[in-house]
Amino acid sequence: MIKASIIGATGYAGIELVRLLSAHPKVDLVHLVSQSFVDQPVSAVYPNFKGILDKICSQLDIDQISEESDIIFTSLPHSTSDRIISALYEKGNRIIDLSADFRYRSAEIYEKWYGTRHARPDLLEASVYGLPELYREEIKQTRLIGNPGCYPTSALLPLAPLMAANAIRPDTIIIDSKSGSSGAGRSPSPGLHFCEVDENIKAYKVACHRHTSEIEQELGIIAKHDVTVSFTPHLLPVKRGILSTIYAALAKNLKFSDIYDIYTNFYCNEPFIVLHEEGSMPELKHVNGSNMCHIGFAVDNRTSRIIIVSAIDNLIKGASGQAIQSMNILFGIDETTGLLYPGWYL
Amino acid sequence: MIKASIIGATGYAGIELVRLLSAHPKVDLVHLVSQSFVDQPVSAVYPNFKGILDKICSQLDIDQISEESDIIFTSLPHSTSDRIISALYEKGNRIIDLSADFRYRSAEIYEKWYGTRHARPDLLEASVYGLPELYREEIKQTRLIGNPGCYPTSALLPLAPLMAANAIRPDTIIIDSKSGSSGAGRSPSPGLHFCEVDENIKAYKVACHRHTSEIEQELGIIAKHDVTVSFTPHLLPVKRGILSTIYAALAKNLKFSDIYDIYTNFYCNEPFIVLHEEGSMPELKHVNGSNMCHIGFAVDNRTSRIIIVSAIDNLIKGASGQAIQSMNILFGIDETTGLLYPGWYL
Amino acid sequence: MIKASIIGATGYAGIELVRLLSAHPKVDLVHLVSQSFVDQPVSAVYPNFKGILDKICSQLDIDQISEESDIIFTSLPHSTSDRIISALYEKGNRIIDLSADFRYRSAEIYEKWYGTRHARPDLLEASVYGLPELYREEIKQTRLIGNPGCYPTSALLPLAPLMAANAIRPDTIIIDSKSGSSGAGRSPSPGLHFCEVDENIKAYKVACHRHTSEIEQELGIIAKHDVTVSFTPHLLPVKRGILSTIYAALAKNLKFSDIYDIYTNFYCNEPFIVLHEEGSMPELKHVNGSNMCHIGFAVDNRTSRIIIVSAIDNLIKGASGQAIQSMNILFGIDETTGLLYPGWYL
Amino acid sequence: MIKASIIGATGYAGIELVRLLSAHPKVDLVHLVSQSFVDQPVSAVYPNFKGILDKICSQLDIDQISEESDIIFTSLPHSTSDRIISALYEKGNRIIDLSADFRYRSAEIYEKWYGTRHARPDLLEASVYGLPELYREEIKQTRLIGNPGCYPTSALLPLAPLMAANAIRPDTIIIDSKSGSSGAGRSPSPGLHFCEVDENIKAYKVACHRHTSEIEQELGIIAKHDVTVSFTPHLLPVKRGILSTIYAALAKNLKFSDIYDIYTNFYCNEPFIVLHEEGSMPELKHVNGSNMCHIGFAVDNRTSRIIIVSAIDNLIKGASGQAIQSMNILFGIDETTGLLYPGWYL
Repeated sequence: MIKASIIGATGYAGIELVRLLSAHPKVDLVHLVSQSFVDQPVSAVYPNFKGILDKICSQLDIDQISEESDIIFTSLPHSTSDRIISALYEKGNRIIDLSADFRYRSAEIYEKWYGTRHARPDLLEASVYGLPELYREEIKQTRLIGNPGCYPTSALLPLAPLMAANAIRPDTIIIDSKSGSSGAGRSPSPGLHFCEVDENIKAYKVACHRHTSEIEQELGIIAKHDVTVSFTPHLLPVKRGILSTIYAALAKNLKFSDIYDIYTNFYCNEPFIVLHEEGSMPELKHVNGSNMCHIGFAVDNRTSRIIIVSAIDNLIKGASGQAIQSMNILFGIDETTGLLYPGWYL
Repeated sequence: MIKASIIGATGYAGIELVRLLSAHPKVDLVHLVSQSFVDQPVSAVYPNFKGILDKICSQLDIDQISEESDIIFTSLPHSTSDRIISALYEKGNRIIDLSADFRYRSAEIYEKWYGTRHARPDLLEASVYGLPELYREEIKQTRLIGNPGCYPTSALLPLAPLMAANAIRPDTIIIDSKSGSSGAGRSPSPGLHFCEVDENIKAYKVACHRHTSEIEQELGIIAKHDVTVSFTPHLLPVKRGILSTIYAALAKNLKFSDIYDIYTNFYCNEPFIVLHEEGSMPELKHVNGSNMCHIGFAVDNRTSRIIIVSAIDNLIKGASGQAIQSMNILFGIDETTGLLYPGWYL
Repeated sequence: MIKASIIGATGYAGIELVRLLSAHPKVDLVHLVSQSFVDQPVSAVYPNFKGILDKICSQLDIDQISEESDIIFTSLPHSTSDRIISALYEKGNRIIDLSADFRYRSAEIYEKWYGTRHARPDLLEASVYGLPELYREEIKQTRLIGNPGCYPTSALLPLAPLMAANAIRPDTIIIDSKSGSSGAGRSPSPGLHFCEVDENIKAYKVACHRHTSEIEQELGIIAKHDVTVSFTPHLLPVKRGILSTIYAALAKNLKFSDIYDIYTNFYCNEPFIVLHEEGSMPELKHVNGSNMCHIGFAVDNRTSRIIIVSAIDNLIKGASGQAIQSMNILFGIDETTGLLYPGWYL
Repeated sequence: MIKASIIGATGYAGIELVRLLSAHPKVDLVHLVSQSFVDQPVSAVYPNFKGILDKICSQLDIDQISEESDIIFTSLPHSTSDRIISALYEKGNRIIDLSADFRYRSAEIYEKWYGTRHARPDLLEASVYGLPELYREEIKQTRLIGNPGCYPTSALLPLAPLMAANAIRPDTIIIDSKSGSSGAGRSPSPGLHFCEVDENIKAYKVACHRHTSEIEQELGIIAKHDVTVSFTPHLLPVKRGILSTIYAALAKNLKFSDIYDIYTNFYCNEPFIVLHEEGSMPELKHVNGSNMCHIGFAVDNRTSRIIIVSAIDNLIKGASGQAIQSMNILFGIDETTGLLYPGWYL
């Protein structure tokens, strides 16, 4: 059994880790660290665990957690866990960090978009971007994984195959994403009040959202040159899920079946990628509750553009599920262990 | 492995059976009968199954389904499956029926409240009301289970212990229930249009809902005399879940701790009953996605009443999960097999 | 034109006053006091006013507001505006207070339920409970109105006629209310986060909500003896509206038509009371956006109970609209001025 | 007083006309034609009108409606009202048609996108596209107005000024629109069931929605050459409103203030256009309930694109409110009569 601990266990991503790992057949949950709820049972904070899981939230004790854990998930806001991760890394632990801190190749890019100094730029080389569909081999060999952002996951999975096949013109990529409000985290704020979100939709951080840089980094690596994209996030009156509608000019004259082949070749045997047939498009309710990424597309001959729609559950494939997928890879067990269930359509 | 078939697999209760049974470690799904979607994969109707379950919906073939199944779930509207259930029962099959047809002791009561003749009143004696917390032993010995209604489950589980202990006055019971709209089924109708349900709540079938008779039957059995209750269902702008707020006059001077003891004695070791501590009350989000029934209560000295709040997921403990719980009992396996997971708080 | 000012103009009740008064044909809005948004235009806080209303929020200046206003609405949390109201009252102003502070006949009751001393018990005698359907004449002759609570309005309007006619037994009254979350106000808190309210319903303050005492005061006045009721509020995943389902034992053998007559006699010519015909019941969407109170009921011969359903918009008939109705009465203009529009069904 | 009749009064657009016109100070509602609810009061179908409007729905009588109405609104599905409109037009009536039938300059385009023959191509010349901000003068002089589609309104109002100023490259326009589900009308269908729409978002008719042709017609007229755009509609879990996020490459090096000037010059004194300041973006809740179109934008120097966000209420500025705006123009009264109220933020 893999002994797993979570630092930041009572945030929305953290508690989703708890939920998924508590049902994972190869994992024992060891420490659930939550500064806000020390000594309280998880089920007092999230009563859906009553009668199922009675673990107590604990204070952070780096030595103990380091010694007693095979894998440590850190799920804290960016730039707040560097000391913890540094310490654990030095002690030889394996870490999957759900913040943005170890997603970047370049500290400079991180610092520009996050407006803060990176505490350990030297560790960026050692860390791997935890998108298994692109970095499976690298994940196997690292001790520090920067778990991808939710929006980037929803954009990169549908775009990577087309970029790799030179099927689209990189300078024409537009990503219009719609996210459930759990993506904004658990802390109350005026903009997350029920009365503000319900019956509403809004675009936010237009032309300046940090995830833009993460998308551009990864697309640039595939393209082997700098790529600049337009990315607009929107806040939906739903709890979970990201639907991204992506536009790009086709680089050449391609039919639906050509693109379909590109996808099936690139993602052959990927357990968490679902490609929709012509005329069918992903919806949030196809993926909420699952680790799947659904991809559908239309080729528009009138405009010579492709329109791609992707759907993920932001808390699972966009955060905790993806982290567990990386953990499975890291420990050499079947990558789908504890992750292969349908979403809840209702 | 238990070979299970579902007749009516693409309704909302049916597809929830598919979802739960496809993850049940002791079950093989054999036939998924759906007249509306014959020869189509389940995943074409419910795309959340894409990449997970590729079973094809089939036409009803009673001989084949009888021969090839250890257990058959029938999930059709009341009074529509009597011929099917009769045939299967004669052939010696074990059946769990999710309609109202086999929940009643008296055909007369059924006929009065459902306004239709009962096709097989002779089978009512053989059938068992499938509420495991009350009829566990009887379930073990039957071949025909009438799976309880969703509202009655939400009312009976909190009321049964108090009735059995003579703690409340039966003639004062008022059950005010609030249900998600999946309870109304999958068929489109004006009243289920998104624009009609969203941002709304309404009471319906006030003083005449059929589930009243089911609640009264079971409370009457416990009380050993006729019991008449007020039951008012409401339609909520949510997909899942039933919250019932129940009022009754206390039969004697009882404190919170007295009632608490009544519950813990009655439900000692019940895996799917969660009792809240004083000051805490169940919410829909505590149970949505799980087979749990949460119960909380307050003793109001000012009015000498108890106010009880219960919460269940109408599609799980209120339908498909409860049916699987009965199946587990019927086959002598651990009652919680395939059912012990937390709900999804988010 | 009536010169009206609002103290606490940017809370949810305050801004609804602004919205309704800005369309009132006999009112000029003079001062909109909001400590949080001093010197900002209302339309910066609530952009729905852009292009419609450009008034600037101001600091509280009691002398100026006193001099320049014919009527002052105070819309602040209870026990926070006593100094302001005292000062304005001494200066001879007319005040409609939307807090709980001036709704009570007895300071003792207020202090017991609100857990705080009443600052000006001497003013309680002068103040009038601003429910026009019960206190129209008293409203005409006062300078200080305690605007009723939202839940009490939804309970008293359907109960008052039956109490006055001795049609129900007062000791059997149970009020099960479901409210939209705007009733909890604008301040962010964990329990009002979108992800906590959406797809959820919960009962809260069971057997101890303060509005119980307000309901009991008014029912007791009609009954001419103490009345004790059970009142349970629930939080709905909608923005607006209160639906109350009310149960009571009939005091005598009454048919639907008898009760119907009691209502029509009591509320003959009331412009904001809508009585539903037999078989029809109020829903939130019948009243959201309007000043109406819809009332429907069923007589249940099986239990000898009446079940009444009432619906109001908590921000209009439950707060700001009712306050304007009182203002109209106070100034001798048609009571429906600025208030007679249908709700928004969609 | 203008005598107004509505044919198709109980659909969602029709009933919004009823709601708005019943409050219009210069309008008398004469006939409300609804084949489905003949002889029933409007308030039986939409109980929000109880106590406010007691008009009875009538059968269609073309002669009578023609004689007794100054203006007739037709609000029926496309290609179903041609006979009615023809007859009324021949009789000399003034008509505002809310279907797509009279929005097109070319019957060919209509027939291609709607897949049906146009019944009266000869009337297309006489008809005017009822977007007042672009065709105010033409509206004054016609008797037949084709009221714009909801999506085209949300796209054309933000795009027209930039097209007219040659500020953007027409071949790069991408319109990603998100609509509330009232836009799909009142008829129940599986896709509009509450359980299908709630907690979901989906793109539909990707690269083939009919409104594309309407947008292209109008942009082409401004550009004086054919324009082809990408337009993707999405269905939101809200009742009302359209938010459109629009992308285009800037034709030249323009700053925020340059674009801002283009808008303010083009829309100087337009009562229903609200331009957001830099850093602020429209949201659905800014416009729901009002006839406003909010426009905000960001200039992205990194990509040389402009991202524009527009918001309208699909039932008001996107349908019934816009039709009334045209009616006001047609009758020479103040264009804002009966239309100048803020939306309902809550």
